[in-house]
Amino acid sequence: MDIFLNEAIKEARKSLSEGGIPIGSVLVYENKIIGRGHNQRIQKNSAILHGEMDALENAGRLSAKVHADSILYTTLSPCAMCTGAILLYGIKKIVIGENINFMGEENLLRNRGVTTDIVQSPECIELMKQFIRDNPRLWNEDIGTADLD
Amino acid sequence: MDIFLNEAIKEARKSLSEGGIPIGSVLVYENKIIGRGHNQRIQKNSAILHGEMDALENAGRLSAKVHADSILYTTLSPCAMCTGAILLYGIKKIVIGENINFMGEENLLRNRGVTTDIVQSPECIELMKQFIRDNPRLWNEDIGTADLD
Repeated sequence: MDIFLNEAIKEARKSLSEGGIPIGSVLVYENKIIGRGHNQRIQKNSAILHGEMDALENAGRLSAKVHADSILYTTLSPCAMCTGAILLYGIKKIVIGENINFMGEENLLRNRGVTTDIVQSPECIELMKQFIRDNPRLWNEDIGTADLD
Repeated sequence: MDIFLNEAIKEARKSLSEGGIPIGSVLVYENKIIGRGHNQRIQKNSAILHGEMDALENAGRLSAKVHADSILYTTLSPCAMCTGAILLYGIKKIVIGENINFMGEENLLRNRGVTTDIVQSPECIELMKQFIRDNPRLWNEDIGTADLD
């Protein structure tokens, strides 16, 4: 197991333990984690803090060079919003825990020259599978397809 | 002048008065503003709170139907991140103050079926032109091209 993907999984599990959606992410520069985060929809009642966005926000304001030379690890294939943030900041490589439970905008990333490594981690797959099964409505909200009251 | 674009401009001017980047946005549903915001890079030291993101965050957690039937107004052409958020939430129409000072991902939006109305508001154009001239480094940071110290 990649140690950094494992740190992203720790973030996902932390979110789950907080009652949140179990998706985590870390931003790695020169072999060190410079930002880590997890989905904050429940915890912060947030519409924009997906795991990747939270990690990017926690990494703070960085130079273009640092972003370009960083690798973003995420437990789940990135949605359009997180993909857009990756493109904005010119991050060139991402490592994706799995894309079985949700296929994000990987084609767009690759078309723009971003290297996308798909791990298909059984741990990531099982984590999301259970969560989606138990919380379909919350999950649909997170990907923009929910009918809330 | 569209009253809602005018409200987005008020947000941009509010940001400027706070020492921030003058880009504002409002989310409108059934002819009412349900979320408003502005760039918070300086004010909240944020890497992700562009004007559109701030407005979406302040609008809160919404059903897919509300997002789909909302119109997002923004003073400046939306970058890749904000474009991705618009796509995630299935917002079908955006009104853009101007795209002279910065051309965002309008082609991607249109290719995905989002209606993009470009106003080319002289007020929006002048506001950004002055800001970029006076703050080139900060502006470059906001669009992911800055060399910080």
